[in-house]
Amino acid sequence: MASMAAMFTKSPTTTTPPLPKTTKTHFIPSFNLSIRTQKPRVRVRVRVGSRRVVTSSELIEPDGGKLMDLVVEEPLRREKKREAMSLPRINLSKIDLQWVHVLSEGWASPLRGFMRENEFLQTLHFNSLRLEDGSVVNMSVPIVLAIHDSDKTRIAVSRRVALFDSASDQPVAILNNIEIYKHNKEERIARTWGTTARGLPYAEETIVNAGNWLIGGDLEVLEPVKYHDGLDKFRLSPTELRREFAQRDADAVFAFQLRNPVHNGHALLMTDTRRRLLEMGYKNPILLLHPLGGFTKADDVPLHWRMKQHEKVLEDGVLDPETTVVSIFPSPMHYAGPTEVQWHAKSRINAGANFYIVGRDPAGMGHPAEKRDLYDADHGKKVLSMAPGLQRLNILPFKVAAYDKTQGKMEFFDPSRPQDFLFISGTKMRTLARNKENPPDGFMCPGGWKVLVEYYDSLASAENGNIPSTARVAV
Amino acid sequence: MASMAAMFTKSPTTTTPPLPKTTKTHFIPSFNLSIRTQKPRVRVRVRVGSRRVVTSSELIEPDGGKLMDLVVEEPLRREKKREAMSLPRINLSKIDLQWVHVLSEGWASPLRGFMRENEFLQTLHFNSLRLEDGSVVNMSVPIVLAIHDSDKTRIAVSRRVALFDSASDQPVAILNNIEIYKHNKEERIARTWGTTARGLPYAEETIVNAGNWLIGGDLEVLEPVKYHDGLDKFRLSPTELRREFAQRDADAVFAFQLRNPVHNGHALLMTDTRRRLLEMGYKNPILLLHPLGGFTKADDVPLHWRMKQHEKVLEDGVLDPETTVVSIFPSPMHYAGPTEVQWHAKSRINAGANFYIVGRDPAGMGHPAEKRDLYDADHGKKVLSMAPGLQRLNILPFKVAAYDKTQGKMEFFDPSRPQDFLFISGTKMRTLARNKENPPDGFMCPGGWKVLVEYYDSLASAENGNIPSTARVAV
Repeated sequence: MASMAAMFTKSPTTTTPPLPKTTKTHFIPSFNLSIRTQKPRVRVRVRVGSRRVVTSSELIEPDGGKLMDLVVEEPLRREKKREAMSLPRINLSKIDLQWVHVLSEGWASPLRGFMRENEFLQTLHFNSLRLEDGSVVNMSVPIVLAIHDSDKTRIAVSRRVALFDSASDQPVAILNNIEIYKHNKEERIARTWGTTARGLPYAEETIVNAGNWLIGGDLEVLEPVKYHDGLDKFRLSPTELRREFAQRDADAVFAFQLRNPVHNGHALLMTDTRRRLLEMGYKNPILLLHPLGGFTKADDVPLHWRMKQHEKVLEDGVLDPETTVVSIFPSPMHYAGPTEVQWHAKSRINAGANFYIVGRDPAGMGHPAEKRDLYDADHGKKVLSMAPGLQRLNILPFKVAAYDKTQGKMEFFDPSRPQDFLFISGTKMRTLARNKENPPDGFMCPGGWKVLVEYYDSLASAENGNIPSTARVAV
Repeated sequence: MASMAAMFTKSPTTTTPPLPKTTKTHFIPSFNLSIRTQKPRVRVRVRVGSRRVVTSSELIEPDGGKLMDLVVEEPLRREKKREAMSLPRINLSKIDLQWVHVLSEGWASPLRGFMRENEFLQTLHFNSLRLEDGSVVNMSVPIVLAIHDSDKTRIAVSRRVALFDSASDQPVAILNNIEIYKHNKEERIARTWGTTARGLPYAEETIVNAGNWLIGGDLEVLEPVKYHDGLDKFRLSPTELRREFAQRDADAVFAFQLRNPVHNGHALLMTDTRRRLLEMGYKNPILLLHPLGGFTKADDVPLHWRMKQHEKVLEDGVLDPETTVVSIFPSPMHYAGPTEVQWHAKSRINAGANFYIVGRDPAGMGHPAEKRDLYDADHGKKVLSMAPGLQRLNILPFKVAAYDKTQGKMEFFDPSRPQDFLFISGTKMRTLARNKENPPDGFMCPGGWKVLVEYYDSLASAENGNIPSTARVAV
């Protein structure tokens, strides 16, 4: 497993980010004062100088050129819900519902619904999809819906099915123009994770006991997916994020995917990335701090606690709220390393990010059956830098950060004085928090640390038979 | 396992081949009688008509634009051999040597040697390589060289190693600018085969007990690889094949990969393909009948027997020698289904083929641990039709052929009268040949069948303690 503080690394094999790409500078003769453009969300600034300079800035295009929005328009919802009630019914698990959410808001654009076999096969074999115009978009994790033999029998010749939330017993979506095809679980797992060992959290949860068929089709989602857990306000859709970035006048958006508490090493890196982008000529780089909100494995810190911790980090001024957008990424976690990091990057393009920060062993974990990491710590970064469909995304590899004992704070590792640095692993951090001990000063802001201690405290209470704090916090 | 006679299928999902692609027709004014071209191997024909028409025909470009030839030029060989003797030595297995052969002649162009890690990762994750100019070529099976810890220690800081044929104890090649990286066998097997079950023939032979490291680099092959088994004359390199096709004035080359005896169903298909290409406007389509010559699993018919059988099929006039080139493809067999069929197609582009015939369950086999085929019989064809870097290759899916009892010959299956057709599986065929029984008249030409009977007879003799016929025939 990647250690918390040592997950920053700078590889010589990855390329230096190019000069600003989304900012186009046109030199136009002084007599031509107007410039017309067909593109949306273009802002024009005129600077003083020997020549008039017009800079148009716009966000990176979504994959396939258009952000999918699969939610039925308000006036039609009643009618569609009625339709859904008359169709063969498929029950969705909690994770299926998270995928409906992901698809509905266009994170997986240009996908219009759960994958049909052609998309599934391209994802497994090529980690990408070829579109009708011949262009290629990245797509590395299968977004599929498994059904059982009995479901298939019940669907019979119907071309549409209704998807129901098992928890609420309410229809969530209609899947149109369906295609049912074989769910080869072994092959899916082998090609997605590069292992078939038992104990892969996502596979155990969603594949091993799932049905023998996959059903693909085009989604009509009956209304926006909400969780009513107090965190919906943080769940900005790609459209909402793009609006936010435009309102903030961002000319670069750099995304930071995480599923762990933020410590000062992360903060240093994010601050430093902004500095580098400013040096490259961007005027207003905005950080998308983007914790993953879907399924995570049992020993990860739950979303609610992480959000509380992130809030403290912003309150304590470790990150600048002016240039930071904190939002929840609704995807479930695969823990599929180099395969999954591509999904994490691709979905952020759709949310408007043109820079992606990639760390050591992204989306990695320990091998479920052997005493080693499942993935080579450098493969994620390498695969990401070569991935089809991601060429227009600028990949920013982590620099190694560690606790500098001489300065009493997190600092980029200086190989000329290794003795001065302390690497604090995730395990070490968890042990400290569990024992209510403090980490070295400057490792994490005190407010953020307090949240972690509370979380592990609540776990201990739960283990002692008390009501789990997660349940108490969940509403 | 794909049955022998039932391996033809026509899918509605694959596209109809386009009109001739490599044949460009220019209409030029009658006063301009000369046309100049920079491209090599262009033949110009002038037809009679109301306008003068010039047709220039050329073979499909190799991947990356240039066919690799990694064999050291004659005058330098002595010198290079001397160099090799002074370098750290790596011993090659028989299969390693087959890959040196494959690489040396440019079948894997633009690869210049065993894969470095960047190529290996792209192959595993994307089944393709992105070249410096941004273009993409297909590359689906890892062409890698495994070494042991002790080899790595011995190489130390050397930037070059010599590759030795273990059998002859002679240097075969120099590997330059080497890169040594981890050999994650589990991940390699999972991502290549979509399973990690024990018993995959290629994996058992070359991966499971191989070293923990892979070594990549640029090859200088000391002389053309030969086997001195009486079949070297059939081992035409891509360059030699292209020369042959040019001499025959081919304007379309359609490749038929096989590792089994040819029966009349195959022949029907190949003849029919030629007819279809003629209908599409090609003037001289040439068939590349291309049996695989490298490693095959124990229960496949060995190359020598297959070549004898193919020879009979041509002698018996089942295929027209005028429009057929029989040659041996030197690659080892992975039995990796949809992943491997891409390699089979891509390497034939490099040999000049612009049409590729794909069957049911190509490169497939039974699951080594479960009672089912390892791959979905249609996935190979589907994956091939969507594979990156193969768009310029025209994929020709098999039509279903079976034994038509009413006509007493192999015929395309007619679903309106299924009762008239007999599907003869590979197992059935082997049983008949082993028992010296005859298949139905018209299933295979008598000369070809006789070879098969002899082969199984020789196996039986060997099992009874006699010298195996394969050994007798091998020289």
